[in-house]
Amino acid sequence: MAHRSGRHFLQIPGPTNVPDRVLRAMDRPTIDHRGPEFQTLGREVLEGVKPVFGTAGSVIIYPASGTGAWEAAIVNTLSPGDRVLMFETGHFATLWRNLAQRFGIECVFVPGDWRHGVPPDAVEQHLREDRDHTIKAVMVVHNETSTGVTSRVPLVRRAIDAAGHPALLLVDTISSLGSIDYRHDEWGVDVTVAGSQKGLMLPPGLSFNAISDKALAASKTNRLPRSYWDWEDMLKPNATGFFPYTPATNLLYGLKEAVAMLMEEGLENVFARHDRHAEATRRAVRGWGLEVLCAEPAEYSGSLTAVMMPDGHDADALRRVILERFDMSLGAGLGRLAGKVFRIGHLGDFNDLALLGTLTGVEMGLSAAGVPHRKGGVEAAMAYLEAGDAKQMAAD
Amino acid sequence: MAHRSGRHFLQIPGPTNVPDRVLRAMDRPTIDHRGPEFQTLGREVLEGVKPVFGTAGSVIIYPASGTGAWEAAIVNTLSPGDRVLMFETGHFATLWRNLAQRFGIECVFVPGDWRHGVPPDAVEQHLREDRDHTIKAVMVVHNETSTGVTSRVPLVRRAIDAAGHPALLLVDTISSLGSIDYRHDEWGVDVTVAGSQKGLMLPPGLSFNAISDKALAASKTNRLPRSYWDWEDMLKPNATGFFPYTPATNLLYGLKEAVAMLMEEGLENVFARHDRHAEATRRAVRGWGLEVLCAEPAEYSGSLTAVMMPDGHDADALRRVILERFDMSLGAGLGRLAGKVFRIGHLGDFNDLALLGTLTGVEMGLSAAGVPHRKGGVEAAMAYLEAGDAKQMAAD
Amino acid sequence: MAHRSGRHFLQIPGPTNVPDRVLRAMDRPTIDHRGPEFQTLGREVLEGVKPVFGTAGSVIIYPASGTGAWEAAIVNTLSPGDRVLMFETGHFATLWRNLAQRFGIECVFVPGDWRHGVPPDAVEQHLREDRDHTIKAVMVVHNETSTGVTSRVPLVRRAIDAAGHPALLLVDTISSLGSIDYRHDEWGVDVTVAGSQKGLMLPPGLSFNAISDKALAASKTNRLPRSYWDWEDMLKPNATGFFPYTPATNLLYGLKEAVAMLMEEGLENVFARHDRHAEATRRAVRGWGLEVLCAEPAEYSGSLTAVMMPDGHDADALRRVILERFDMSLGAGLGRLAGKVFRIGHLGDFNDLALLGTLTGVEMGLSAAGVPHRKGGVEAAMAYLEAGDAKQMAAD
Amino acid sequence: MAHRSGRHFLQIPGPTNVPDRVLRAMDRPTIDHRGPEFQTLGREVLEGVKPVFGTAGSVIIYPASGTGAWEAAIVNTLSPGDRVLMFETGHFATLWRNLAQRFGIECVFVPGDWRHGVPPDAVEQHLREDRDHTIKAVMVVHNETSTGVTSRVPLVRRAIDAAGHPALLLVDTISSLGSIDYRHDEWGVDVTVAGSQKGLMLPPGLSFNAISDKALAASKTNRLPRSYWDWEDMLKPNATGFFPYTPATNLLYGLKEAVAMLMEEGLENVFARHDRHAEATRRAVRGWGLEVLCAEPAEYSGSLTAVMMPDGHDADALRRVILERFDMSLGAGLGRLAGKVFRIGHLGDFNDLALLGTLTGVEMGLSAAGVPHRKGGVEAAMAYLEAGDAKQMAAD
Repeated sequence: MAHRSGRHFLQIPGPTNVPDRVLRAMDRPTIDHRGPEFQTLGREVLEGVKPVFGTAGSVIIYPASGTGAWEAAIVNTLSPGDRVLMFETGHFATLWRNLAQRFGIECVFVPGDWRHGVPPDAVEQHLREDRDHTIKAVMVVHNETSTGVTSRVPLVRRAIDAAGHPALLLVDTISSLGSIDYRHDEWGVDVTVAGSQKGLMLPPGLSFNAISDKALAASKTNRLPRSYWDWEDMLKPNATGFFPYTPATNLLYGLKEAVAMLMEEGLENVFARHDRHAEATRRAVRGWGLEVLCAEPAEYSGSLTAVMMPDGHDADALRRVILERFDMSLGAGLGRLAGKVFRIGHLGDFNDLALLGTLTGVEMGLSAAGVPHRKGGVEAAMAYLEAGDAKQMAAD
Repeated sequence: MAHRSGRHFLQIPGPTNVPDRVLRAMDRPTIDHRGPEFQTLGREVLEGVKPVFGTAGSVIIYPASGTGAWEAAIVNTLSPGDRVLMFETGHFATLWRNLAQRFGIECVFVPGDWRHGVPPDAVEQHLREDRDHTIKAVMVVHNETSTGVTSRVPLVRRAIDAAGHPALLLVDTISSLGSIDYRHDEWGVDVTVAGSQKGLMLPPGLSFNAISDKALAASKTNRLPRSYWDWEDMLKPNATGFFPYTPATNLLYGLKEAVAMLMEEGLENVFARHDRHAEATRRAVRGWGLEVLCAEPAEYSGSLTAVMMPDGHDADALRRVILERFDMSLGAGLGRLAGKVFRIGHLGDFNDLALLGTLTGVEMGLSAAGVPHRKGGVEAAMAYLEAGDAKQMAAD
Repeated sequence: MAHRSGRHFLQIPGPTNVPDRVLRAMDRPTIDHRGPEFQTLGREVLEGVKPVFGTAGSVIIYPASGTGAWEAAIVNTLSPGDRVLMFETGHFATLWRNLAQRFGIECVFVPGDWRHGVPPDAVEQHLREDRDHTIKAVMVVHNETSTGVTSRVPLVRRAIDAAGHPALLLVDTISSLGSIDYRHDEWGVDVTVAGSQKGLMLPPGLSFNAISDKALAASKTNRLPRSYWDWEDMLKPNATGFFPYTPATNLLYGLKEAVAMLMEEGLENVFARHDRHAEATRRAVRGWGLEVLCAEPAEYSGSLTAVMMPDGHDADALRRVILERFDMSLGAGLGRLAGKVFRIGHLGDFNDLALLGTLTGVEMGLSAAGVPHRKGGVEAAMAYLEAGDAKQMAAD
Repeated sequence: MAHRSGRHFLQIPGPTNVPDRVLRAMDRPTIDHRGPEFQTLGREVLEGVKPVFGTAGSVIIYPASGTGAWEAAIVNTLSPGDRVLMFETGHFATLWRNLAQRFGIECVFVPGDWRHGVPPDAVEQHLREDRDHTIKAVMVVHNETSTGVTSRVPLVRRAIDAAGHPALLLVDTISSLGSIDYRHDEWGVDVTVAGSQKGLMLPPGLSFNAISDKALAASKTNRLPRSYWDWEDMLKPNATGFFPYTPATNLLYGLKEAVAMLMEEGLENVFARHDRHAEATRRAVRGWGLEVLCAEPAEYSGSLTAVMMPDGHDADALRRVILERFDMSLGAGLGRLAGKVFRIGHLGDFNDLALLGTLTGVEMGLSAAGVPHRKGGVEAAMAYLEAGDAKQMAAD
């Protein structure tokens, strides 16, 4: 690649722009993973991530991508032939279903239009109808990275409870954790799946399972073979700060720093910042006369916005123009949305001016690619950010 | 300082945003400055910087700030009591004059309005009147960092020649080198003064003197004491890649990388990029209904734009609001312009979206600070960048 | 931890001392793993690692520790109830056996004394006796990290061939790859398991499966469920430089640099260097009057040396003293060797003076910990290194 | 340069091995040197360095090499024609004399044998004889980097006082500060000159003047022209954390970290560590049957040891062999000692095993280069370090 002046705008919905503090924290010699210095680190990160998940319980850290944590959630809790309830909220829900099927899980996969989240009433209805409790788990993607739709996990929880059903609740927070309000304990989630490369602002390479006592109990009796992903193998050495096999030490250095950054900013502020940037982005989208994919305002995502292309225009052609001319990466439409939407990531280490730089890139790209649109998207976003900011200042 | 999410926008006219490639190049152990590995490095940087200055002659590299290179230019060429011709183009011309006076130089300092560059006809006139050639040097700040005005050095050269005057031509390119077209040899400059922290994209800590044979000859007979800045002491070990005292090795690592980046992009493209960003910025300024300080279009600066505040509004209050709310640093008005202008740096490692992020910060800041202005600046900049980009694409 | 002056000596047998070049290569922003810049990187690393494995075939790269690559080798080739032949060469052979058993593999685990490698004649005998070819794989740990014994894979291959047995050959090279001569294709290995944090000089977090056509064929019909580790899912996107899920991008940056370093030095030189350092270490051990654990000179390890403690002396007490007084980490005795041996890692990014610094730390540590020994170990190592060096110089 | 495995041993007496903590601290974007974040940094470093100098007064920080700080000490305190008293303790004393002469200072330069420090009685005698107080300053190199001899500054102070002479005391601590006990205030030093690249563990590029009230008073009336080095220009903005011209911001990041490291270790421990390593080195030298250049035990240097070559053997040939074979840089003999001594730096970020690695390199190098010597140097050093360590442990 020829040299390009300036910093690339990485506005896919993850991996996100890794902040210098995290990169520098990782840029240190690896240490003995069985020595006392590591032990201190191990304890710090194992304890430190808990509030990010909203849990007082255990969080397992894998040297793996998020897909590995998906697999871990399944192989530790389910058995071949088990039924699970899932909803087709988008590409990643579909992929998780596919993964589960590989392990012999029978998936009740309720079709969806990829513009809505998990419908709580459908959860309740399916579970009520499952009188024999053959459904062992409800598996929900909290924030569908392919669509920018955030399912309302508390309502899913309430639906399960209303149905009086004992199913486990497994939730994928890969693109929500550290960006969108999430509470493992309070919402009664049994396994929370997460990854390092989104709201946690790390490079990819770590993934997580936060686990409830109920999930842990399930892992004692379920019948899927496992070793790398085995919770019990992990929990034992974790108790003293160690890991059963070589951990990804340098990513743990980064994790410690990333958690510190989230705590310094304050999780509530982190979530509010993401919400504000998401709303500014949606106003820009409407300013351009385009449509946000997410059809339900209560399910708008704080971490990304998927934008629908006008008929007859290819999102990938637009993305290519924007990458070439403005050195910005946007997310592609995935699966059945290929070519039909592009996705703007506004999560992780981000601020107002970077968001607006992003939106100017989209606005100019729409012109450059000959996509019909109105001007004024950036202006609408600025107007919102100014006002929101003014309101916040007044409240201080 | 509390943690702020996202990357700071450092849009002062230098130090500029140091690119990761340069930071990473510097992030290496220091080596023996008398050993063979250093020798290779020394030769590479001493040779490598020459095209950036547009010279085939010697470039001296000091472990020092630009102010040191100002001093070096003087103590190597002039003697106490010498007269020099200078023009009050702004704050830095004034500071350089002050520095020269400290060394007993008598400065003919032609007053100016801080909105224009060096007037070539005045150069010619002053030199013609100096029949006894008591003026030993004409000292010009190529790009006045305090005003965003770029003096036309080729016209100054022509004026000196037209007057048939033997004065040396000393030029400060601290905020132009690597950003604005500059040619030490072709323009007949005798000493070019430069620093590392602007167009060269390095942290501060290196500065430069590119020197002509005529300047070198002057250094053999002038009468100012010197040691650290002495050219002759430098040139001898430089011939084999070494330095007379410990050089700033890690900054030299960065210099090698920065020169490589400039060459990869191509100096002509670098200058064109700066011009394009400067024009976009001026269009934004006019879109806001504000005035660019530089009064002469032929002297617009490619590296920064100074913007005049409406009467009764304080530029520093505006800058404070922008720093607090939008995490962006802008340049203050200096000297007699304090509070009356703010300066937008658009030099160094930069691109369209970062420029537009910068301009959105100014536009929102004007609102937030209650500075009367029109909306539409950012839009005007986008329109220009799109069009300019389209033109460039057409030309490809 | 209180500040300690100077650089820690990380002389465990991995993770190894990550060189600055690799750390700096990783210290860069993560890029879009679906974009063209990543594609170039993906192709480079997928192609670049092949010569390190001595293969022209495919190498799978996992975002995982070596344990994951162990699991991958099994779940892609074997089925529940399959029999495999393994040898108790040490702790890691035992752990791999345990892992296989978790997946329902029946392990013929031939007992060993932890001082020898895999006996080729026993391989042949077991396979000859297996007339029905119920044994599906021979699983060998090339270099036993727990003992410093290197099994002779070419002899194992010859034994399998001599028995005319169709078993797959799976080899763990976690602590040999990039340190000890290894040839996946030439030696007819079917699956080579490797990790990033030893001879490859990277932090932990990547692991590898190099696979033969025969192994790939086995993966088409075997019956272990898998998703994260699935070769076929990997190979398809790998063909164009991509990965089926988010790869550990920053570790791939490091991998590219590490492979470049190995190639610059030359693999033959890399192996010779490790052999030379291993021999120097053994001479030191004998100089101290202590015994090397490895009982067979033809099986001495190039990457680490396990040293037996005199009876009645605790290796962990010695290691603690050395860590506290001399800031050096040594490897512990593992499993049945706990407390009885300590292990000196001399692999990865290493040189003569660092090795000797290491050996001085052991020699002084023996004194400090009151372990009976003779002086003269370091001197013997120096004598060998000087002479070996002289020989090499003469040969140049 | 071809790739060499392992870390280079940089054992010249500065620049020293820059620790990762310092490199990483510097590896951050440059900030606005006129903004509030810089102000905090400026205050921290200006205050933080004071205890390292042993002063409660002002320390000036220059973006320059140590040579610049030499010049600064002179141009701020002396006037052309002033007489100063200096002693020929080695190469750097000679260079400082030369520099002073450039500025018209008349140097009484008492000859020396380059094996002793400044003789306090000679100081007293010269000053007593200077009844008219024509000598304006006594200029002393605390630790002669060219010889490894440390002059006893407290005795020099006492000599000046005994003579009742008002001369200023200027001391160069370039290779002692942060390594050898030094107390600006307590010893009544007027200007302390220092640099960043030795005991301060930074890359080169910063230098220092710690100044007494008496020195400051002298600067108000002395008659050497100056601007870059002017104390008064510095002190004014320093009072609020700023600098009169662009400071070397990234080196200041490093300075903050380096000072933190010195404080964490404790200055007394830092000095004791250097002394201990110096004694171990001298024992090694004697073990080899070679001679330490420093002839006076009370003047042994804690930061480096200069070793005399046997007659007829060239130190530079030895150094070349050691660099080529063992990848270690040692210091050359300078000036009249060229080829006759080599210098071992044992200062800065260093520890026992790195020192012993260094000494093994020298011992093997002596063999490789055919320099007559005895074995046993390394062994003697080990014996000392063990014992010293045991003593320290006993004391704990």
